[in-house]
Amino acid sequence: MVVLPVSKIWTPELHVTNGVQTTMKHGNKDLLVHSNGTIEHMVIMNTVVGCEVNLYNYPFASDFCAIGINVWVFSGCGMFLNFGKVSKTSANRGDWLTEEVELNAKGGRDDRNYLWVSLKMRSENPFLSLVLPSILIIVADVVSFSLPLGGGERISFKVTLVLSFIMFLIILNDLLPGGGQCSPIIRKHFCFCLVILVLSTLQSMVLTRLAKCGTLWPCSLSKSKDSLLKDTDNEEVSKSDITVIKLKASEEKKKNTALQKVVKFLNKMAAQDQKKARRHRFANKVDLICFCIYLTVLIVYAVVILYFSFGSSCEINHLEFWEY
Amino acid sequence: MVVLPVSKIWTPELHVTNGVQTTMKHGNKDLLVHSNGTIEHMVIMNTVVGCEVNLYNYPFASDFCAIGINVWVFSGCGMFLNFGKVSKTSANRGDWLTEEVELNAKGGRDDRNYLWVSLKMRSENPFLSLVLPSILIIVADVVSFSLPLGGGERISFKVTLVLSFIMFLIILNDLLPGGGQCSPIIRKHFCFCLVILVLSTLQSMVLTRLAKCGTLWPCSLSKSKDSLLKDTDNEEVSKSDITVIKLKASEEKKKNTALQKVVKFLNKMAAQDQKKARRHRFANKVDLICFCIYLTVLIVYAVVILYFSFGSSCEINHLEFWEY
Amino acid sequence: MVVLPVSKIWTPELHVTNGVQTTMKHGNKDLLVHSNGTIEHMVIMNTVVGCEVNLYNYPFASDFCAIGINVWVFSGCGMFLNFGKVSKTSANRGDWLTEEVELNAKGGRDDRNYLWVSLKMRSENPFLSLVLPSILIIVADVVSFSLPLGGGERISFKVTLVLSFIMFLIILNDLLPGGGQCSPIIRKHFCFCLVILVLSTLQSMVLTRLAKCGTLWPCSLSKSKDSLLKDTDNEEVSKSDITVIKLKASEEKKKNTALQKVVKFLNKMAAQDQKKARRHRFANKVDLICFCIYLTVLIVYAVVILYFSFGSSCEINHLEFWEY
Amino acid sequence: MVVLPVSKIWTPELHVTNGVQTTMKHGNKDLLVHSNGTIEHMVIMNTVVGCEVNLYNYPFASDFCAIGINVWVFSGCGMFLNFGKVSKTSANRGDWLTEEVELNAKGGRDDRNYLWVSLKMRSENPFLSLVLPSILIIVADVVSFSLPLGGGERISFKVTLVLSFIMFLIILNDLLPGGGQCSPIIRKHFCFCLVILVLSTLQSMVLTRLAKCGTLWPCSLSKSKDSLLKDTDNEEVSKSDITVIKLKASEEKKKNTALQKVVKFLNKMAAQDQKKARRHRFANKVDLICFCIYLTVLIVYAVVILYFSFGSSCEINHLEFWEY
Amino acid sequence: MVVLPVSKIWTPELHVTNGVQTTMKHGNKDLLVHSNGTIEHMVIMNTVVGCEVNLYNYPFASDFCAIGINVWVFSGCGMFLNFGKVSKTSANRGDWLTEEVELNAKGGRDDRNYLWVSLKMRSENPFLSLVLPSILIIVADVVSFSLPLGGGERISFKVTLVLSFIMFLIILNDLLPGGGQCSPIIRKHFCFCLVILVLSTLQSMVLTRLAKCGTLWPCSLSKSKDSLLKDTDNEEVSKSDITVIKLKASEEKKKNTALQKVVKFLNKMAAQDQKKARRHRFANKVDLICFCIYLTVLIVYAVVILYFSFGSSCEINHLEFWEY
Repeated sequence: MVVLPVSKIWTPELHVTNGVQTTMKHGNKDLLVHSNGTIEHMVIMNTVVGCEVNLYNYPFASDFCAIGINVWVFSGCGMFLNFGKVSKTSANRGDWLTEEVELNAKGGRDDRNYLWVSLKMRSENPFLSLVLPSILIIVADVVSFSLPLGGGERISFKVTLVLSFIMFLIILNDLLPGGGQCSPIIRKHFCFCLVILVLSTLQSMVLTRLAKCGTLWPCSLSKSKDSLLKDTDNEEVSKSDITVIKLKASEEKKKNTALQKVVKFLNKMAAQDQKKARRHRFANKVDLICFCIYLTVLIVYAVVILYFSFGSSCEINHLEFWEY
Repeated sequence: MVVLPVSKIWTPELHVTNGVQTTMKHGNKDLLVHSNGTIEHMVIMNTVVGCEVNLYNYPFASDFCAIGINVWVFSGCGMFLNFGKVSKTSANRGDWLTEEVELNAKGGRDDRNYLWVSLKMRSENPFLSLVLPSILIIVADVVSFSLPLGGGERISFKVTLVLSFIMFLIILNDLLPGGGQCSPIIRKHFCFCLVILVLSTLQSMVLTRLAKCGTLWPCSLSKSKDSLLKDTDNEEVSKSDITVIKLKASEEKKKNTALQKVVKFLNKMAAQDQKKARRHRFANKVDLICFCIYLTVLIVYAVVILYFSFGSSCEINHLEFWEY
Repeated sequence: MVVLPVSKIWTPELHVTNGVQTTMKHGNKDLLVHSNGTIEHMVIMNTVVGCEVNLYNYPFASDFCAIGINVWVFSGCGMFLNFGKVSKTSANRGDWLTEEVELNAKGGRDDRNYLWVSLKMRSENPFLSLVLPSILIIVADVVSFSLPLGGGERISFKVTLVLSFIMFLIILNDLLPGGGQCSPIIRKHFCFCLVILVLSTLQSMVLTRLAKCGTLWPCSLSKSKDSLLKDTDNEEVSKSDITVIKLKASEEKKKNTALQKVVKFLNKMAAQDQKKARRHRFANKVDLICFCIYLTVLIVYAVVILYFSFGSSCEINHLEFWEY
Repeated sequence: MVVLPVSKIWTPELHVTNGVQTTMKHGNKDLLVHSNGTIEHMVIMNTVVGCEVNLYNYPFASDFCAIGINVWVFSGCGMFLNFGKVSKTSANRGDWLTEEVELNAKGGRDDRNYLWVSLKMRSENPFLSLVLPSILIIVADVVSFSLPLGGGERISFKVTLVLSFIMFLIILNDLLPGGGQCSPIIRKHFCFCLVILVLSTLQSMVLTRLAKCGTLWPCSLSKSKDSLLKDTDNEEVSKSDITVIKLKASEEKKKNTALQKVVKFLNKMAAQDQKKARRHRFANKVDLICFCIYLTVLIVYAVVILYFSFGSSCEINHLEFWEY
Repeated sequence: MVVLPVSKIWTPELHVTNGVQTTMKHGNKDLLVHSNGTIEHMVIMNTVVGCEVNLYNYPFASDFCAIGINVWVFSGCGMFLNFGKVSKTSANRGDWLTEEVELNAKGGRDDRNYLWVSLKMRSENPFLSLVLPSILIIVADVVSFSLPLGGGERISFKVTLVLSFIMFLIILNDLLPGGGQCSPIIRKHFCFCLVILVLSTLQSMVLTRLAKCGTLWPCSLSKSKDSLLKDTDNEEVSKSDITVIKLKASEEKKKNTALQKVVKFLNKMAAQDQKKARRHRFANKVDLICFCIYLTVLIVYAVVILYFSFGSSCEINHLEFWEY
């Protein structure tokens, strides 16, 4: 047995077909030459593989990655590979778990061997930092329907929710890769959430106007206000020159007239109040209808998104590099 | 047939004219020497091309990239290239789709061959995360005109919209490359949106003042207030020493005077109310006019931006590297 | 003694088993050949080790890193290593302190030597920028229960807290690595904080409605309002044609009726006030109960999180690379 | 003519004096040896130059970059360079335009040649995303003086503006490089904007207090309130035991007394109103003065900043690398 | 004189002891061999030095960096270095100024030479973007004590300040390196600011409650409200069946009773008002005390932080790499 430095020996050339960057290092520059001419040596290949992983069901994504391994064989002249047992190490690290590695051959051809690596995502972190907050914000939006219409609180609350949601969109854009063939469904989910939040804000705005003006058209909000004391006003102008010395009867009358004015004022206030209340009741009814529609849409959406997230999948041809 | 290691053979030198970083690797260090002297070998070239892509219509961008391939030929002495069939692989990955690849020659010259790669952007994700929110925010701004002028709600709502919009500008700045020759039109769109949002906020502020003071000049907001009970006040001072024992007639008079004061108070309140209402109606009319102008501007803008996004384009000379 | 350039000498090959990137440089290309044939030279190895550090107790994390060092020995033929004393330098720099370095051998085998490096995190900075703000926000949320229910202040305050918290989540996502086998418990902590903040906001919203309507169902908020002056109103309509000339008795009666109306108005206002107060007291009671539950949950949570942060740990097999 | 591989020929050594990273590649490994001994070959030099660009007028920056090119000449022994025509390609790409390239020699010395590259920034994008929003926010701040003092709207509006501005500071910090010798003036501009926004917010806060309390010292805001019905109150205590059976005269007196009390209440309300109005008018006057000062400061600042941005410049010695 | 290519000459080996990445390039591959055997050539060494800079006083940091330069000398056999004059170039670029460079020898030993580079930070930019805003926010917090307690404005203002501050924390975390041995004091400063802002917000919340309820315990806020018209109410119930035909005396009595009721109502309102005012005055007093404590804490803190920033320093052993 002789130990020789590697550089003097013609080393085989392996190819990782979809390898973006492959460095084949000899595990050791020494190799063992047995007396029968067999050479034993170890090769370490570090490969960065350009494997398009399907993120359609992100953050519950799991996919396969095919790594084509071949040597150069041309009209029977070249090299042949004998694959042994494939095993994996450090499969439990990082964000992706390596579940299984298999050696397959495409179409039974000897020169089209590939490693079929099945990967699974750790869905805990993205679920907690992306999906959960979106659910919480939608729930907060549903509950915010319990806030009274007129006070301005509901609108400011909903606008803040929209703002919070945009914050999450920023996080999402940092965390998610940019789409590709199977664009992750969670992008559409966030998009839908944004649209529904904005729509519910708009609905609150429109109903606030409805509650205040009774109509959606440019309302004469102030017209009812100024008619409040109008006639009282006119009467007052004609009676501004009060002669102090009067008969008792006329005095009593005047006293009564003054009291009548107060009552009239109260009556008018009451009438206006009633009009306002009628509008409010109407707006509240419309609000209730909107809330029901909103809830129905959310429930239908939840069913649809759950079906698409878990029931369907998007297929990628992982052996596309051998199609040409 | 003999298999020889590559390093002993003089290999041809290909050049990618606009290649920022080009590594030409032999697919296999072995090559096949036929008995007639022909040599068969495979070359793999990884090229990072400095191709300026036109992002004018971003996110609906599609453009071409010319990759010049040439060898060194000097006064008839050098090497000649024979191009075979060009095909593409993995064209469907990432954010850009490779639609077609063609081999052309500039001006029919043999030594100015280039690959004409037509690329198309996946516009789904940037549309959802950039264009859609900007539309939603503008719609919310339009609908926010339905909020009453005086209550402060409209202003706080519009300010929050401006804030949300700035959030999106931050996302945009992360996502978009920095302009170049054909600066993406979406930057101008976002810029316009920001300006229109700020202008509509300013308009609301100014009209809020108009509704409260009736004038845009430093208003005497409080002057009308203090005149509310002024004369009543003065009378009261002179009558503060009320002698309890009086004649019935004078007592009745006093009673009447007191009632008159209450009525006067109510009258003045009504007058002030009326003035306020007049101002409010005026402000509302101005608001309606502003809203109409705003809507018109938005519609005109929508037409203009749609024309520029889809109807026009910005041409880049992709073969500029051969112009010198 | 002769000084020879290194390249003419066969240098030993060391391997760092879990080394992602290892460069072995000779400290000096010169080496010293003693007359008895011993060669003295210095080797500098820069190794980037792929060591999965346990961040379970982050930011109070401390863990070990095993660095396997071996040479190629095959059926007794190869090289043997003699380890001297291991010492450390610059152990006090950066975010991680190197506490101790030991040389161990796995299972007593000669060829399975590894360096056992114990690391400790500097927990000051992440504590100040992650844990402290989360505690402050939770405390602010607890104290915000002191704000009155109805005024809208509490809701807007709590929503702002949620917004602030999301800000911190953004910082967290930049600072923390992505989980792995022992996902840091602080992620769950932040998640819990977010959920509790949102729940307490929802509780405030629901109680605000309870305080205003007395019920959680679509309330007839306005019904009570319009009944305020209803009968007064009806009477007024029948008496709108007041004949001025009347008897004194009827006049007195009328005056009295007018006064009665005012009193009735006040009475009704009082009754409504009372109803409102009853609702408020009920809502306040429910609020107090919620506050107690909230405090209890927080205290229980504090105990649990302290136990998990300091009492428990998550074990990682640091010698996994030798398991296959 | 013979074509020889380059490696067998001694190639000249060019130096880019301020080149951080220079790779000189032969454009082609083949070179042409004419029969008269002249050798023709092509050299491609990729140089990353450490050229400190003056960003003082950012985003309207334009500067020069000197690239020193020299060969090693020592006491007349070495190499000499003959420069031909200098031309530029792809000058219109990216954020910086290459306007002109000239070949100069420092101090007329043959061995101190340098390329004088004049660069100009594309100022459109940074103007739109940095300068324009800062102007918009300042304008919004100016217009926000039209909001009434007391209502709390102005303060919340101004605070939101400050918040928006901080958002832009975040964008700025991502976009701008870190200063150096000629720190960009836009940093000082943003700094000034922040200070002026905060000061105007503080002014609004102080004037809100002035409008409410009439003084800046710890005010007895509530003292005037409780004196509103004080004497009325005292009288009421002494008359709480009303005996129902009384004489008509005393009854009339009592009736009158009751009415007097109502009038007194109204009078006191009026007096308080007047005091409030006086304070309001005073605060409004101070506000107007502040506004004028604010406008003046802004106009002066605008002139100063325009002068510094366009009128002045900061000189950098671009040939500093030859000073030692 | 002969010019020889470098590769044929044995070149000396310099070592930068704490150099993370050192590339020694010959300035020129040509060298000059004088007739007396002396060889002249130039060596350019690019070194990335792992020098831990003390950021304790950031952004006013200034520190030294020791760069150990040595050659391999073993028992008198090896190489010796003769250092000439050390000069610096481009010292004024980037964020750090190189103030001075000195050549020292540790402990007077010949083989322990090092360059002692004194660096100074450009503190302008970090001061403007980190320290100044923190001061502005604290000042705004101090001035916000002038806002009235009850109105909810102060709380919303302070919460917005906290939000703004968190924004700055985000900028800080991007700008600052991660601590190390001498953690920058500015982190503690920001931490203190955050705590003081949150505490002052909590104080405002608690005092708002105090001003409204008069107690910090679960208050019977509504109890006083419903007692407002209680007895009036009871009387009204018993007199709801008013018989219209009555005697004049009883009528007068009734009229009086009605007026008495109005007066009673006003009296009760006044009493309640007084109670409220008393609470308000008490809360205002407590607020004033809190403000004084707050100011004192801030002043003490300012003195302490100024002392620690400028008066003290944190020492790092820059020659630690030679300690082992």
